[in-house]
Amino acid sequence: MPEHQKIRNIVIIGAGNLATHLALALHRKGVNVIQVLNRTRHAGERLARRVGAGYTDDFRAADLGADLFLLAVSDSSIEEVAKNLQLKAQLLVHTSGSVDLSVLKNASLNIGVFYPLQTFSKEKRINFSNIPVCIEANTKENEEKLVQLARLLSNKVQILSSSQRKVLHMTAVFAGNFSSFMYTIAEDLLKKHDIPFSLLKPLIQQTAATAKNEDVFSRQTGPAVREDTKIIDEHLEMLSKHGVYMEIYDLISKSIIKHKNRNDQL
Amino acid sequence: MPEHQKIRNIVIIGAGNLATHLALALHRKGVNVIQVLNRTRHAGERLARRVGAGYTDDFRAADLGADLFLLAVSDSSIEEVAKNLQLKAQLLVHTSGSVDLSVLKNASLNIGVFYPLQTFSKEKRINFSNIPVCIEANTKENEEKLVQLARLLSNKVQILSSSQRKVLHMTAVFAGNFSSFMYTIAEDLLKKHDIPFSLLKPLIQQTAATAKNEDVFSRQTGPAVREDTKIIDEHLEMLSKHGVYMEIYDLISKSIIKHKNRNDQL
Repeated sequence: MPEHQKIRNIVIIGAGNLATHLALALHRKGVNVIQVLNRTRHAGERLARRVGAGYTDDFRAADLGADLFLLAVSDSSIEEVAKNLQLKAQLLVHTSGSVDLSVLKNASLNIGVFYPLQTFSKEKRINFSNIPVCIEANTKENEEKLVQLARLLSNKVQILSSSQRKVLHMTAVFAGNFSSFMYTIAEDLLKKHDIPFSLLKPLIQQTAATAKNEDVFSRQTGPAVREDTKIIDEHLEMLSKHGVYMEIYDLISKSIIKHKNRNDQL
Repeated sequence: MPEHQKIRNIVIIGAGNLATHLALALHRKGVNVIQVLNRTRHAGERLARRVGAGYTDDFRAADLGADLFLLAVSDSSIEEVAKNLQLKAQLLVHTSGSVDLSVLKNASLNIGVFYPLQTFSKEKRINFSNIPVCIEANTKENEEKLVQLARLLSNKVQILSSSQRKVLHMTAVFAGNFSSFMYTIAEDLLKKHDIPFSLLKPLIQQTAATAKNEDVFSRQTGPAVREDTKIIDEHLEMLSKHGVYMEIYDLISKSIIKHKNRNDQL
């Protein structure tokens, strides 16, 4: 890609967790964050200071000379905020896993998506190098520009369509949010019986480590995959005072058995 | 504890994954595994060779001079195998998370449980130092002997009653087996849409890392805890062809919302 087409100057819209982590990471990689645009002054000014950018809360004051407008706002605000920018051909991207590229189509001639797949908490500095960044754009040239930018941050840059990105986002709910809730259920039940949650921590780490391979199900253990109905029934009995947990135990166990028998037939 | 009361000589009954890993680990720590008793000759002889022990498939040939008889057989065989040993006062333990100590009560005067909380696969050498070992015994003296033995292997030795151990085992199903199945669902759905599962691996590791803290739920993210019904409905729609996965998504999401609102009220 010719030097003059590289993305050098960025306007960040938003000052939440994702906006902050992206702005800081790009700034560290030598990309100029020239402006932070955010409705709430305090958070916007704070982020602007950290990356040496200007700050504005006024869409009409957006610096239209930037190479990229990076929208890191809530899913439901993307379309409206994009319109308010009143761009013509400046490259405009959103950062959402679940929003279609097409919501930007009336906001600029050059549009894309820059979606880092990770959960960002406020606290600690994020190392993006291992975090997948999923790219989509309305032209090959825009795609290439965004891929180059993403590669500054991450070793795992992936081009995905809007529909693929939505599937990925949905599966991240299972692999991330729901597995985390399984830990919560365990912690909750242990607390009720005065048993330290720390006893489960090595198991949790080891289980996550098995997902470093493909075909996770081949490493599935426990009463369900053994179809050990005696233990399953004992566990359901123990959970009888915890209605929802019992339902979850029952449904997932049945689903594991079904999955196993389906695989056995293949 | 006086030197002469330490456990020095062990008979291992069983030659499966757990028997093998325990025998090898104890052997490495200088404990004498003097005999392996196993019905299947091939596996029994193999394990006996690896730890320099004798082998027998005959209960009547069990070496009654051992300090400890360690039963690492399937849950359903424990009671019968224990009886067949025809011990009087030799210390006899089983290694199961879900079986009561009392099933051993007619098999010897000195009984206990030695339960390492981990999933053991055949393949690789296990480092027990980080694996919790849960101890129970019918007397303080037996408990102390087993704690001493467990400390040779692990930094995390925990005394638990039979009922606590059963709760721990049940919660390990949630935290280990069920979280693993969440990865399987994600992998399965991604495969159907030609999206590499590797994209989720960093998220899985990061999510497991959050469980190193207490109060996992305070770090819960995703559409359910945000009560983002628009995204939840989109995901359910995407899952409509995958009946069981849709049910699981729906039930866990509702449970997360319920948990959140319960916590908000506290």
